[in-house]
Amino acid sequence: MKLREYLHHQITIGSWPDGKLTGMNVLLIWVILAAVVVGVISTEPEILDRYRQEILWAEIAFGVFFLAEYLARIYAAPEMPGEGSDWVKRWRFIRSPIGLVDLAVVIVSLAPFFIANAAALRLLRLLRVFALAKLGHFSAAMREILGALRERSYDLLVCAALAFSLLLVGASGLYWLEGHLQPDNFGSIPRALWWAVITLTTVGYGDAYPITTAGKLIGSLVAVGGVLLVALPTGIFAAAFSDAMQRRREAVAKALAEIEEIG
Amino acid sequence: MKLREYLHHQITIGSWPDGKLTGMNVLLIWVILAAVVVGVISTEPEILDRYRQEILWAEIAFGVFFLAEYLARIYAAPEMPGEGSDWVKRWRFIRSPIGLVDLAVVIVSLAPFFIANAAALRLLRLLRVFALAKLGHFSAAMREILGALRERSYDLLVCAALAFSLLLVGASGLYWLEGHLQPDNFGSIPRALWWAVITLTTVGYGDAYPITTAGKLIGSLVAVGGVLLVALPTGIFAAAFSDAMQRRREAVAKALAEIEEIG
Amino acid sequence: MKLREYLHHQITIGSWPDGKLTGMNVLLIWVILAAVVVGVISTEPEILDRYRQEILWAEIAFGVFFLAEYLARIYAAPEMPGEGSDWVKRWRFIRSPIGLVDLAVVIVSLAPFFIANAAALRLLRLLRVFALAKLGHFSAAMREILGALRERSYDLLVCAALAFSLLLVGASGLYWLEGHLQPDNFGSIPRALWWAVITLTTVGYGDAYPITTAGKLIGSLVAVGGVLLVALPTGIFAAAFSDAMQRRREAVAKALAEIEEIG
Amino acid sequence: MKLREYLHHQITIGSWPDGKLTGMNVLLIWVILAAVVVGVISTEPEILDRYRQEILWAEIAFGVFFLAEYLARIYAAPEMPGEGSDWVKRWRFIRSPIGLVDLAVVIVSLAPFFIANAAALRLLRLLRVFALAKLGHFSAAMREILGALRERSYDLLVCAALAFSLLLVGASGLYWLEGHLQPDNFGSIPRALWWAVITLTTVGYGDAYPITTAGKLIGSLVAVGGVLLVALPTGIFAAAFSDAMQRRREAVAKALAEIEEIG
Repeated sequence: MKLREYLHHQITIGSWPDGKLTGMNVLLIWVILAAVVVGVISTEPEILDRYRQEILWAEIAFGVFFLAEYLARIYAAPEMPGEGSDWVKRWRFIRSPIGLVDLAVVIVSLAPFFIANAAALRLLRLLRVFALAKLGHFSAAMREILGALRERSYDLLVCAALAFSLLLVGASGLYWLEGHLQPDNFGSIPRALWWAVITLTTVGYGDAYPITTAGKLIGSLVAVGGVLLVALPTGIFAAAFSDAMQRRREAVAKALAEIEEIG
Repeated sequence: MKLREYLHHQITIGSWPDGKLTGMNVLLIWVILAAVVVGVISTEPEILDRYRQEILWAEIAFGVFFLAEYLARIYAAPEMPGEGSDWVKRWRFIRSPIGLVDLAVVIVSLAPFFIANAAALRLLRLLRVFALAKLGHFSAAMREILGALRERSYDLLVCAALAFSLLLVGASGLYWLEGHLQPDNFGSIPRALWWAVITLTTVGYGDAYPITTAGKLIGSLVAVGGVLLVALPTGIFAAAFSDAMQRRREAVAKALAEIEEIG
Repeated sequence: MKLREYLHHQITIGSWPDGKLTGMNVLLIWVILAAVVVGVISTEPEILDRYRQEILWAEIAFGVFFLAEYLARIYAAPEMPGEGSDWVKRWRFIRSPIGLVDLAVVIVSLAPFFIANAAALRLLRLLRVFALAKLGHFSAAMREILGALRERSYDLLVCAALAFSLLLVGASGLYWLEGHLQPDNFGSIPRALWWAVITLTTVGYGDAYPITTAGKLIGSLVAVGGVLLVALPTGIFAAAFSDAMQRRREAVAKALAEIEEIG
Repeated sequence: MKLREYLHHQITIGSWPDGKLTGMNVLLIWVILAAVVVGVISTEPEILDRYRQEILWAEIAFGVFFLAEYLARIYAAPEMPGEGSDWVKRWRFIRSPIGLVDLAVVIVSLAPFFIANAAALRLLRLLRVFALAKLGHFSAAMREILGALRERSYDLLVCAALAFSLLLVGASGLYWLEGHLQPDNFGSIPRALWWAVITLTTVGYGDAYPITTAGKLIGSLVAVGGVLLVALPTGIFAAAFSDAMQRRREAVAKALAEIEEIG
């Protein structure tokens, strides 16, 4: 097998018949997770002060690794199925969404070594957390789920409309009833909407809550409505999810059956 | 096609064979949403002070638009299916629930320009948010859902009875145990009910909570009961919702099959 | 029809072939709900002070009504199906659970007019709220649901064991980690259990929460475990509930079919 | 029946044809629960001070009981199915996970009577709560559930990835927007993650919440995302749980049928 073909098989998921993760895939996933974890903990001042040197070396290592991976993907792109010359296929990969994500991660990972501006550095460090988006290379399952949800988008829209109406009724009611009593929390409908969202989702921080009897009645309505409204997407999601997984299993079973027939 | 027929087709959803939203429908939905958003943010004093003139112009524009739409609906009402002369059908639309909503939105949208009383103005501004109710013109799906829920109203009633009993037991218990310790929160059963609702729905603001061991035991009971009780409507809603959507899809499929047969 | 037979038909649900609520049933339900509402609001000192006389008259009326209903039930008990002489059947009703509830409600409703002790009065007033238990006369559906849940009691026991283990692990962990930092909240496992229950049920009052990094990790574990554990009874309840309702519908359909055959 | 065989039947669940709990099993479950409860309440200083002597005696009794049970299990181990001499089977039990748990419980229960170091004692007392792990002897059902969940591990992994991404986006957003306003809560991404977990699971303690408009928008996104994400594992768990229970029932029915055929 040629190097290019080997690289393609190693880097791309599902290019082997069985669709299993290759050794390179597993390595890539661990490096992405490590880069995200280092990105996350490097925002903690105490840790940054203590391990500044180690974090810097890790960042250089991750940046070089992602650059090498990006170049390997461009080099191996002609192995992807489809029409077109080598360079047409490479350009197709570069301008694809996941190709742009890969490029962005390389830039964000290596830029800090060429830039001195403090604010820009802080933003770059934050953006490094989004190396997580590189996991999109393994997103076949997520695409299936999103596809299943899209089929139910009409149902989810009705849920969203009901939730939005309840939010608006609750927020308007508390604005009217307690706007003059608690101006910070309910002094306008946009302010009251924060309370309504936090109540409808049953989070309930307790930074804002009604204090009058009428306000508490509306608050109870929103809280009970929240419990009932949670039930709607639960039903839709559960069915859509179960559908998507069923289809995936059938597709895998069919593919395995075909391989057995051939092999 | 005559103007009246054209207007009817443009304004009413589902009058074209495929039941798709017409261009006018889409425009109407966006205007309604814009009117609601302007209504919501115009209650925020800071925004109102800064953009008073722009908000005023937007309100006039929305009022005139809704007036024109209302008149067009009255004019085109004779195109609706059913028996009766043109004016009988018009009157039927005017006194229908959605016709009254349309009229109310027109009045609420335009009244501020003829009224000077501040308190009345504030109420009118608040009511403008309920232009959202005009979305009822597109409520076919919601009617199906409500119909499906009505079929299960007996089950939901049992849930409500269980929830109400648990609320009452919890509130009575804490009134008895901590009414003298925290009179503001548990000094009477109605006061303790606010705590019970906020706990049973798992919102948990933290403005009221038991402080004695016995009270915490009852609080745990209500919290655990809340989790279990949430499961009941979830099951009912999920099934009812899935039923309604199934029926809608079958009806659409049947209608499409009939169209194909004819066309 | 004899008076006794008429009374029996009026008072007992389901004695008419169709099992519909009779006029007397509907009246009884409304009186029970009214008695509970009066019982609840009469615990509010402000309302009690203002409407003391009206509440007193309402309590007398409810007491007399429940006494009359109790006597009518005893009088009509011989009409109930089963073997035995009139007085055997009456005694069977009196010592049945719902008969004892009826008696208790009568005693609790009328006792305040014969007792002067303040503490005893307060307790009696509180107990009056439990007139709600009289709704047990209409509990056929609830019995079906409880029966369905009992069939799944093994599954629910496993859930309870999982939940209890997670509670204990979380509470022990925070007792170990933060017992010396927040002795009031985590100074012993029983104290930490209150926090664990309120977190696992996702209520989250905010009266107790971890403040150290290790404690927050355990808190996150309990919170995520709570979300996952909520899913288990939801699935069990939803299935059990749907089963019970299915059976009820089939039983009603079968009964109707038999009536049609006969009639 | 020999003593060893009798002991094996009494101690091991499911060794009788019907798999019912034996008298010894029921006793063991109650002793385990009692030991856990004593372990839990003995961490409460007030109770420990008052009942120090009683708790000490109870601890000795539990320790001796668990020691006797452990020795009986070793003695009866040769009765377990499988190849090997008596001592091979005994060693197999001793080094099995549940055998090590049994040994650990015996050591933790009896060690306090041989150790005087205060810190070690406190840890031993805490560990005694984990006698609960001995319930693993009765974990057939839990093994089935875990097996069913393992089959869906791919689906749960996708959920976890979605939840983790949302956590990271929310925490990064608030770190960027409010890190300088509330350094204690959002001064680094790890700190902001605590807020994100408590919001996504809809616990909402209220110890940390956004205060700017942009921060509240991101907070609303995380709260709504939490509600939607809760729906995914609910669907998966419900289906997996229902599968596991279905299989268990079928296995029990099949076993009963076989017994009937034989007997």
